[in-house]
Amino acid sequence: MTYTLILLRHGESDWNAKNLFTGWVDVDLTDKGRAEAVRGGELLVGAGLLPDVVHTSLQRRAITTAHLSLDVADRHWIPVKRSWRLNERHYGALQGKDKKQTLEQYGEEQFMLWRRSFDTPPPPIEDDDEFSQVGDPRYADLGAEMPRTECLKDVIARFLPYWEAEIVPDLTSGKTVLVAAHGNSLRALVKHLDGISDEDIAGLNIPTGMPLVYRLDDSLAPTVAGGEYLDPEAAAAAAAAVANQGR
Amino acid sequence: MTYTLILLRHGESDWNAKNLFTGWVDVDLTDKGRAEAVRGGELLVGAGLLPDVVHTSLQRRAITTAHLSLDVADRHWIPVKRSWRLNERHYGALQGKDKKQTLEQYGEEQFMLWRRSFDTPPPPIEDDDEFSQVGDPRYADLGAEMPRTECLKDVIARFLPYWEAEIVPDLTSGKTVLVAAHGNSLRALVKHLDGISDEDIAGLNIPTGMPLVYRLDDSLAPTVAGGEYLDPEAAAAAAAAVANQGR
Repeated sequence: MTYTLILLRHGESDWNAKNLFTGWVDVDLTDKGRAEAVRGGELLVGAGLLPDVVHTSLQRRAITTAHLSLDVADRHWIPVKRSWRLNERHYGALQGKDKKQTLEQYGEEQFMLWRRSFDTPPPPIEDDDEFSQVGDPRYADLGAEMPRTECLKDVIARFLPYWEAEIVPDLTSGKTVLVAAHGNSLRALVKHLDGISDEDIAGLNIPTGMPLVYRLDDSLAPTVAGGEYLDPEAAAAAAAAVANQGR
Repeated sequence: MTYTLILLRHGESDWNAKNLFTGWVDVDLTDKGRAEAVRGGELLVGAGLLPDVVHTSLQRRAITTAHLSLDVADRHWIPVKRSWRLNERHYGALQGKDKKQTLEQYGEEQFMLWRRSFDTPPPPIEDDDEFSQVGDPRYADLGAEMPRTECLKDVIARFLPYWEAEIVPDLTSGKTVLVAAHGNSLRALVKHLDGISDEDIAGLNIPTGMPLVYRLDDSLAPTVAGGEYLDPEAAAAAAAAVANQGR
């Protein structure tokens, strides 16, 4: 008995296209991003991988990606569960900033520290910043858990309780589970699944719109380390492009 | 304290446009239907009516209507609950048949009996009919409850348990509830809320894509009989058009 887990990073967003730090800012998909989501659904159909339940973040780009992928896979009707714990990493004061400009202003070392350090978050965002989510009704219940910035370590800390409480029970009940989320919440999950070190996770990029399939054994260990992309060549090319953002 | 319930019939579907009996056949929205759904969301925003939770059928036209309406209202992130009990009336052997042709073939009396009789269902659909839903994975758990045809009375019988168990608790906990569903599942609900007789419900039509708002008192009785459309003039015109289908 193996369990089937499918990870899907949202398709290209408006701010991916504009090369801005996005984080918790709730931007929409581009037309390219919508096409990626549809293509993701077609890949699921082609592989005969039909989700029984979907988990999404509270962010439009993941929600719409899930909707479009599942619709084309004729699985639009499955149960939906959403949580802020699947959200993208909060990018703190960098939210809304241009990536290239930030790189030039602060230099490569600081830039890469903010982007890829495991435990150094960017400076926190001010509550009255136009790109703060304080006051957003979807986060009204978070109280002291409401982040103002996050590093990957913080994302793991808020993601894992949801993994254990909500996703694992779906998997162990035999359901094929789709997680439609974000670059960093999915990196948190992959780090956990594959036991990647705090150092090595910095080099791991997950491309947009490409289903990544994990078959997990009884102890929830991957039967194939790193999982398997349904379109491996396209995934490798896309991951290389992500690594070059801001250059 | 009043409770707020918003009913939204899906926008125009491919088969509304082609004038075919649809029932449980899972057709998509037309571009007009998508625009109606977006307009429905704009009306919610204009009225300051922001759903806290959405209930949908298992059918694409209601699911996509909910997605599009909520997305434009910036409520795409709210919890979603789905049930076959919100599905359109199963139209039995008429599913996939042309309405005008059916009217000409069987005559007005039989046609209106099938369309509007409270307790006379159309002939049941054969399990091997191309428009049967037997074998559809989304209904795999229904067992003996799987309908082969339904009259409105049947729809009420399978809808009300969901109303009591799932929708009422959301309302009485103070949530603004959106129900995105179908002509006949919503007629079932309106009949129940307004205490409409088995005879009088025949004359009630609910237009597509127009939010219908009920404020309910502590005993879940409407404070305004029949609820209130957010765009009453457009709703009246559209309801008249529905009544003339097949003519």
